[in-house]
Amino acid sequence: MKDKSAASVSLNTTQGLQQDISKKYTGSTQSTIFNVEKIILEKYLQLMGKPEIFLQLPDGSKVFSDHAYPEIGAEFLTGKAIRRFILNPNLSFGEDFSRGNIRIHGDLLDFMTRVCQVRATHQRQGILHKFFFQGLINRKNNSLTGSKENIYHHYDVGNEFYQLWLDKEMQYTCAYFPQPEVSLETAQLAKMEYVCKKLRLKPGDRVVEAGCGWGGLSRYMAKHYGVKVKAYNISHQQIIEARKRAKEDGLDDRVEYIEDDYRNIKDECDVFVSVGMLEHVGRENYSKLGEVIDNNLTEEGRGLIHSIGQNEPDEMNAWLEKHIFPGSYPPTLREMMAVFEPYGFTVIDIENIRLHYAKTCDHWLTRVNQHEKEITEMFDEEFFRAYQLYLAGSVANFLVGGLQLFQVVFTRRSNNEVPWTRNYLYQDN
Amino acid sequence: MKDKSAASVSLNTTQGLQQDISKKYTGSTQSTIFNVEKIILEKYLQLMGKPEIFLQLPDGSKVFSDHAYPEIGAEFLTGKAIRRFILNPNLSFGEDFSRGNIRIHGDLLDFMTRVCQVRATHQRQGILHKFFFQGLINRKNNSLTGSKENIYHHYDVGNEFYQLWLDKEMQYTCAYFPQPEVSLETAQLAKMEYVCKKLRLKPGDRVVEAGCGWGGLSRYMAKHYGVKVKAYNISHQQIIEARKRAKEDGLDDRVEYIEDDYRNIKDECDVFVSVGMLEHVGRENYSKLGEVIDNNLTEEGRGLIHSIGQNEPDEMNAWLEKHIFPGSYPPTLREMMAVFEPYGFTVIDIENIRLHYAKTCDHWLTRVNQHEKEITEMFDEEFFRAYQLYLAGSVANFLVGGLQLFQVVFTRRSNNEVPWTRNYLYQDN
Repeated sequence: MKDKSAASVSLNTTQGLQQDISKKYTGSTQSTIFNVEKIILEKYLQLMGKPEIFLQLPDGSKVFSDHAYPEIGAEFLTGKAIRRFILNPNLSFGEDFSRGNIRIHGDLLDFMTRVCQVRATHQRQGILHKFFFQGLINRKNNSLTGSKENIYHHYDVGNEFYQLWLDKEMQYTCAYFPQPEVSLETAQLAKMEYVCKKLRLKPGDRVVEAGCGWGGLSRYMAKHYGVKVKAYNISHQQIIEARKRAKEDGLDDRVEYIEDDYRNIKDECDVFVSVGMLEHVGRENYSKLGEVIDNNLTEEGRGLIHSIGQNEPDEMNAWLEKHIFPGSYPPTLREMMAVFEPYGFTVIDIENIRLHYAKTCDHWLTRVNQHEKEITEMFDEEFFRAYQLYLAGSVANFLVGGLQLFQVVFTRRSNNEVPWTRNYLYQDN
Repeated sequence: MKDKSAASVSLNTTQGLQQDISKKYTGSTQSTIFNVEKIILEKYLQLMGKPEIFLQLPDGSKVFSDHAYPEIGAEFLTGKAIRRFILNPNLSFGEDFSRGNIRIHGDLLDFMTRVCQVRATHQRQGILHKFFFQGLINRKNNSLTGSKENIYHHYDVGNEFYQLWLDKEMQYTCAYFPQPEVSLETAQLAKMEYVCKKLRLKPGDRVVEAGCGWGGLSRYMAKHYGVKVKAYNISHQQIIEARKRAKEDGLDDRVEYIEDDYRNIKDECDVFVSVGMLEHVGRENYSKLGEVIDNNLTEEGRGLIHSIGQNEPDEMNAWLEKHIFPGSYPPTLREMMAVFEPYGFTVIDIENIRLHYAKTCDHWLTRVNQHEKEITEMFDEEFFRAYQLYLAGSVANFLVGGLQLFQVVFTRRSNNEVPWTRNYLYQDN
């Protein structure tokens, strides 16, 4: 579909010239009451790195990155939404999309992928860039009380909501798809099995899990590997659900769910595991996490940290930070080493399964879309759209390499009881 | 064997008391003209972390870490050797061992393992520690001319020397032992195959190898995977030998050996590989290496860096630095990320095969010992003992986790043409 504005070019010379000038500055040929806004929005698209999208104004006129006329774009339904976007694009885009003041033309995932693609690869430097992109984020500290408040924001929305679109074991972390086409259920079980294999669990091992979510991994380890688990989480609702399920499965003698912060862990353990917590720990606390591991892990112990990461240090999107994951930050590998280096831990294996997280989020997005009615009734349309946007953005960011997923396996420095090769991880496959 | 000095304790009360005091400060009961030296040496052992070794003085008296009486120790044959040791232990131990002024009682590897074990695990802090252990190292810069001078030191000793104890393809880097008991020859071939697999080479790929040694990997890649290789090295003798072998194998149309520094690489490539060079590049140049990769690697390209590393930043041993590997430094993973992070490369896989390097060095040590006569005739006893010490120290350090061996696989940020899982690496095993 060619953009409609292209049809009206050059009725006569003067008008054509005017249109050329207008096009030069706005990528559009229509004159509009939003001329200033259009100039700013075009500059914004250029600074972003020229994504293949359009931005449409309330009067129907459009702004393009270049002279391309893509079919995918975002429509501002009100002038106020444009002005909020201009003042703080990172924060307001999500807010106004959720509230229905911005409408996406074309597929939301396609739109987000085009945006994330240039965001991930474009040089983000210079004062103008800073001016345009840096929202005034009111970042909360991850102090002991701060963490509790932040995490409520997301996880205590209600177990019923997550049950609608997570797998049966309610794994709210990256799955591992042995083959790309397996189901989410299969992939989440495979993830737990893969983590257990990497940790070389054996019956009787004392395992500490930091940040256990709804406790699926703890129960899996206890059930299939005969270990004893102490699993920590600060989310009250998750702990209640985790205990209930452990009791139902007859595992409550082997899995203890503790409603407390990882910084308070004091349990000598053979295995330390944390899947999807480091992203919420905050950069300033990585060394503290390492200290907790150092204080509790035996000399022959093994550990695994599974976390979202990124290639270069970059702040979280302001909207995600404010509305979905307060206080979180995806570390670079260099930053992540602050967990291990001060305590001399030996990193023995790091695997990046970024594309598995793209697929996981894609499954979640599909399921969220399938449950639009229930979610909207449970909360409202704004809430539903917020989750749509967050999940589409996540798929996009994992697809374009804006986000990574690292599994780091480590031991004490001199532990020679490590597998000779990695063959054992793949022998059954 | 109980130490002889223990037999002479407590002939009468006064003498017994004197001996107790003497023992308290020196771990020994013998009075000696080296009383001051003994006090300092005992302090030294304590600061090291109490290794289970003795230090013996020219008059036969001994100093112990504790009240243990180990059979393994180092004997100073002259007073001058003790005083040099006290002034600069890190540098002089190797020098005086090589020159025959220090003799090891018991197995050299056992001795080095005991020393490295405490060195690797003991807290190295405090002013006294600094005073005792920091030699005045005259570190050379790795400028373009500096590098050439440094590397000559080691690699241009002569190809005949290395042919005595390296494998047929002269791989002077960590081998990969599919099973611990395979031969060094098999393991070096397996290492090359493993690297090729990790790089997913395909016919026609343009490969750049930075720091190619005697060119074994380049020839392997060209012969078995049908790729074209440009291989860089600043060692003249290695390049001559590499070219000779490529011609003999009929591979000189596919492998080009270039006598130049990695910083001068200007060849667009599908694959960038560097095995055992990063250790010699110097911390200040990691970002430059990343820039070189960034300038040459295609968008769909893959890369692998294989390097010695360590868990915490620590200077090289002064003697190794001066006599065996001038200008070299084993990076921590955090430091290594300076190659990748500034250019947004995606790290997809890191494997630590430290124990494979312990085994590799052990093979080398055995072979060097087997060729004592030839090596001594080729150079002299000092040279032979220097290599004995360096290799025994290397085995020990890889065994105790003082050194690591990292293989890092990476791509451009958004390259989704990556293996879905790591199964493919292990399917044939």
